[in-house]
Amino acid sequence: MVGIIMGSSSDLSVMQDAIEICKEFGVAYEVDIVSAHRTPVKMLQYAQTAKDRGVQVIIAGAGGAAHLPGMVASATILPVIGVPVKSSNSIDGWDSVLSILQMPNGVPVATVALNASKNAGILAIQMLAISDQALSQKLLAYKQDLIEKVAEMSQKTKSNLS
Amino acid sequence: MVGIIMGSSSDLSVMQDAIEICKEFGVAYEVDIVSAHRTPVKMLQYAQTAKDRGVQVIIAGAGGAAHLPGMVASATILPVIGVPVKSSNSIDGWDSVLSILQMPNGVPVATVALNASKNAGILAIQMLAISDQALSQKLLAYKQDLIEKVAEMSQKTKSNLS
Amino acid sequence: MVGIIMGSSSDLSVMQDAIEICKEFGVAYEVDIVSAHRTPVKMLQYAQTAKDRGVQVIIAGAGGAAHLPGMVASATILPVIGVPVKSSNSIDGWDSVLSILQMPNGVPVATVALNASKNAGILAIQMLAISDQALSQKLLAYKQDLIEKVAEMSQKTKSNLS
Amino acid sequence: MVGIIMGSSSDLSVMQDAIEICKEFGVAYEVDIVSAHRTPVKMLQYAQTAKDRGVQVIIAGAGGAAHLPGMVASATILPVIGVPVKSSNSIDGWDSVLSILQMPNGVPVATVALNASKNAGILAIQMLAISDQALSQKLLAYKQDLIEKVAEMSQKTKSNLS
Amino acid sequence: MVGIIMGSSSDLSVMQDAIEICKEFGVAYEVDIVSAHRTPVKMLQYAQTAKDRGVQVIIAGAGGAAHLPGMVASATILPVIGVPVKSSNSIDGWDSVLSILQMPNGVPVATVALNASKNAGILAIQMLAISDQALSQKLLAYKQDLIEKVAEMSQKTKSNLS
Amino acid sequence: MVGIIMGSSSDLSVMQDAIEICKEFGVAYEVDIVSAHRTPVKMLQYAQTAKDRGVQVIIAGAGGAAHLPGMVASATILPVIGVPVKSSNSIDGWDSVLSILQMPNGVPVATVALNASKNAGILAIQMLAISDQALSQKLLAYKQDLIEKVAEMSQKTKSNLS
Amino acid sequence: MVGIIMGSSSDLSVMQDAIEICKEFGVAYEVDIVSAHRTPVKMLQYAQTAKDRGVQVIIAGAGGAAHLPGMVASATILPVIGVPVKSSNSIDGWDSVLSILQMPNGVPVATVALNASKNAGILAIQMLAISDQALSQKLLAYKQDLIEKVAEMSQKTKSNLS
Amino acid sequence: MVGIIMGSSSDLSVMQDAIEICKEFGVAYEVDIVSAHRTPVKMLQYAQTAKDRGVQVIIAGAGGAAHLPGMVASATILPVIGVPVKSSNSIDGWDSVLSILQMPNGVPVATVALNASKNAGILAIQMLAISDQALSQKLLAYKQDLIEKVAEMSQKTKSNLS
Repeated sequence: MVGIIMGSSSDLSVMQDAIEICKEFGVAYEVDIVSAHRTPVKMLQYAQTAKDRGVQVIIAGAGGAAHLPGMVASATILPVIGVPVKSSNSIDGWDSVLSILQMPNGVPVATVALNASKNAGILAIQMLAISDQALSQKLLAYKQDLIEKVAEMSQKTKSNLS
Repeated sequence: MVGIIMGSSSDLSVMQDAIEICKEFGVAYEVDIVSAHRTPVKMLQYAQTAKDRGVQVIIAGAGGAAHLPGMVASATILPVIGVPVKSSNSIDGWDSVLSILQMPNGVPVATVALNASKNAGILAIQMLAISDQALSQKLLAYKQDLIEKVAEMSQKTKSNLS
Repeated sequence: MVGIIMGSSSDLSVMQDAIEICKEFGVAYEVDIVSAHRTPVKMLQYAQTAKDRGVQVIIAGAGGAAHLPGMVASATILPVIGVPVKSSNSIDGWDSVLSILQMPNGVPVATVALNASKNAGILAIQMLAISDQALSQKLLAYKQDLIEKVAEMSQKTKSNLS
Repeated sequence: MVGIIMGSSSDLSVMQDAIEICKEFGVAYEVDIVSAHRTPVKMLQYAQTAKDRGVQVIIAGAGGAAHLPGMVASATILPVIGVPVKSSNSIDGWDSVLSILQMPNGVPVATVALNASKNAGILAIQMLAISDQALSQKLLAYKQDLIEKVAEMSQKTKSNLS
Repeated sequence: MVGIIMGSSSDLSVMQDAIEICKEFGVAYEVDIVSAHRTPVKMLQYAQTAKDRGVQVIIAGAGGAAHLPGMVASATILPVIGVPVKSSNSIDGWDSVLSILQMPNGVPVATVALNASKNAGILAIQMLAISDQALSQKLLAYKQDLIEKVAEMSQKTKSNLS
Repeated sequence: MVGIIMGSSSDLSVMQDAIEICKEFGVAYEVDIVSAHRTPVKMLQYAQTAKDRGVQVIIAGAGGAAHLPGMVASATILPVIGVPVKSSNSIDGWDSVLSILQMPNGVPVATVALNASKNAGILAIQMLAISDQALSQKLLAYKQDLIEKVAEMSQKTKSNLS
Repeated sequence: MVGIIMGSSSDLSVMQDAIEICKEFGVAYEVDIVSAHRTPVKMLQYAQTAKDRGVQVIIAGAGGAAHLPGMVASATILPVIGVPVKSSNSIDGWDSVLSILQMPNGVPVATVALNASKNAGILAIQMLAISDQALSQKLLAYKQDLIEKVAEMSQKTKSNLS
Repeated sequence: MVGIIMGSSSDLSVMQDAIEICKEFGVAYEVDIVSAHRTPVKMLQYAQTAKDRGVQVIIAGAGGAAHLPGMVASATILPVIGVPVKSSNSIDGWDSVLSILQMPNGVPVATVALNASKNAGILAIQMLAISDQALSQKLLAYKQDLIEKVAEMSQKTKSNLS
């Protein structure tokens, strides 16, 4: 199961893509609003109990001084994927990126691109696929689909230009 | 009492200035190593019990993805002063500054300049002086001393150049 | 009493949140337009007389080459909270942030996030609460309210997604 | 097995920490020099054959216009961890970070902090531990060890200061 | 012949200017969608076969972690011109610029300004003109035209202001 | 007369070049240590009385949250040249540059490059030369000298390489 | 006379403020479109002949790789004021600012804030006022006007809030 | 023939690599010191006469507000390769990069990485090789050599680690 959390329901529009990927790959997920700064106790409890609840990977999205991914990583041994969100109070996203990425030795966060919750979802699937042959097959099909979409774009672009 | 914490004893060389200011102004202080990412439970406990232990202001120094000041602020109503430390794993200090400064609404951190633990100390004294007439007098004297030091520098520079 | 100043009435839309926090916590405040660059004499007088007028904390908002918070801090021993404003002539807010944050040793400014006048207000309340038991109670209630709002968001998000 | 690759043997001093983590956790690994820009064919072959060779996670370190992690991710469904290296030709590490982190939708790279190959190693172990109970136990012990080291630092710092 | 490629048809609006320059100067060109991250094999094949297909210069546009120009350069000896595209997932264009510009020794990319596909086109013409006297003449005429347009603007501006 | 001021005698090594230019061009100058943050009253007095003392241009050097040039400009109608100093507490000089350059409408500061006190000196001479024919002649000679130095370098480099 | 130049008529909306200041202070001016990159010969001629034409100060506005102010400064001993323009092809204005500000020793440009052509105009007036008593009086009146406008804003804001 | 120019003989240590590449590939070259800001007339003459002197490509290195490559490009139709030099007065190289890269429409500069004069040399060779079969063969050999050096590093690294 993939645990998907974010600091506020206003982040849901960005984080929705991670949910869609889980659905597309048929992987179970849970979604919750957990704020490092407003609900630190709930946040630690979430992280400490996640593994026992069956969570295998955690995706955490946050913006500004984005402490949620790193703090969840501090209290679990599960891999944590951090999604820097370009929230309204962010300085062009630099604060979100740096406060998720630059974790100290011992407590990594797997950071993806700004607002890239879709890639967070795919990365979570890749981690689960290490020991799941069926998921691996689906990832191969997904990659093949990317190739075909580019082939279609290539075809269409050449037609339009000639 | 001022609570002075940092994520690692390697930050002590930077944070020492805050300690010296407390000594200079005759204000009680406690010092501890508290890591948001390695000791999250101890960190929350530190923040939750600080007020009852007599702490009135907290100074927290951290570098990189610097979550300590903000997370301590999440679990106490005491004012928290954050010192961005330019640690060895920092990207020129930008990560330390942004992950301390850009806190979300509801949970402020009083951020000072990069490595400026001396100013963190003075700011703590200023907060305590709001209701402490004797400390106010010392701050006035400190300010007067700054003026005199500039006067001396001015004198000496003019002599050297003429 | 909290002194709230800004360099231009165009900053009022950003600084209004600090005023609201003072109202919400029942703390007296005064508001004025004071420009470091256009009214330097008035600015110094404001800072020099603030304490005698009963001001206990100053909140100063400014944008671009934002000198107001630092210059007010140069002429008072009161704690000064600086709000970097992302004004129209700012380079993405970086100038506002750096010219408020990076104060030299001896003269601190308690800097909050870009446009975060709400947090400036809360930080002022926290400073006053050091010696005011009633304000401490209100801050505890405010923190509890933050927790409950996240719980509501969590509830609502889970309902919407299931 | 963890595949550890880098663009040049000059990156080995940074990437060594990932090797040490694999040794410490008793996880098999292979190391190779693979350059996206000098050996693009070898690079694609490495990525395409890694899974069949038994590689389960790939750690790729690169600096400057760091294309190795992203290009390896383009040609495998294995999770790829990217280590931005602050090489001599880098602009303060910003180029390394951004060209690894900002991958387009469909092809994620799990990015860690600048030069943080140790965290890359731990993240790889965390991914493998999803389906490996023994590794989970070792990660719990590792986390406990972090706590104890902070406790020792705390003890020593308090002694030195009193 | 000039080869013009881009990672997605969404980049076409930016890259159209390079096509127009080729038309304007009467130079043959081919256009294709080639994605480094989604179609790495097609991308290498494109680069490896370009010279034999008669391509003399390649213009490659890409955004975010923009690997297309550098990877194409890895697999051909033709000069490659890189156009950093400010795509929607870009951090203000910095990622696009740095991941194209900061190529390692041995594999250069001729980088032009953000979104400057027009200049990429002109640069390609300049390269071809090294051994093509007719193109040189056209470039001289083009430069003369720039001078005349400024003269017209100068005239019109002076009239409007007086 | 040129007024040369700086916030601390530690800036003298940078500001010395401006003094040398004044000597070289035979223009009178005065030097003083004036700190915006430690001696705000002296600073305003300096600015308010400068013109009556015969000062015609002011050169002000400062680092970090560099308020000296802008604050002096607030209290005089003389042109003020600002020299951003890369002091030890500066974030790579960005803070010094932005807090001097980004002045609001109505109060300009003529900003020169980081640490470029030599250019500040030349710019002051250029301003004085507007109404001083002799200084103009010296500036022409200075410019001629630059040309000759490049010619010498050109000669020497060609000899060394052949 | 003030010479006001810009690289394109599209910069006129930004540069208009400098013209207005000249009108307001009754100072003669000339306006022209001069492009460093499209009309380098005209540009050098403009700079070389400006003094003889009666120009006393030059204001030059440019965006992107903004070479106009620095190149004009290379060919005249008149003081040159540079206005970094945030043009459409600029990277958030950073390119415009840095390529105007960071001039080498010997050839200064008096740089003002991004888009701050109004301040460029005032700075030009300040330079001319060094030897023009009447202009000095007008600058004093202008400064007094700034003070009164803040007083009005202060009055109005206090009324609105009470 | 390749024309290699730089603004000062202090840039020679960086630009030497371009010279070495010309020697290695047996391509004629000329070297000169040409300063955009100190010798603007010589600079324009250099650019205007280069083609007639037999120069086919120009490599120009400069630091800080680096105007040399762009200004040379303004006065010739030859392709100009710009090398941003991280000189002592540069702000971490950002000024050099942006003032070379961000050229306006109509006047491109082929920019390479910071200090990457070696890649400038290779790029020049690639341009000449468009119409020179022998140079193409040498470039293929050079590329093959890069592959073999990685193979050697790979071999050695594996031996050292096992």
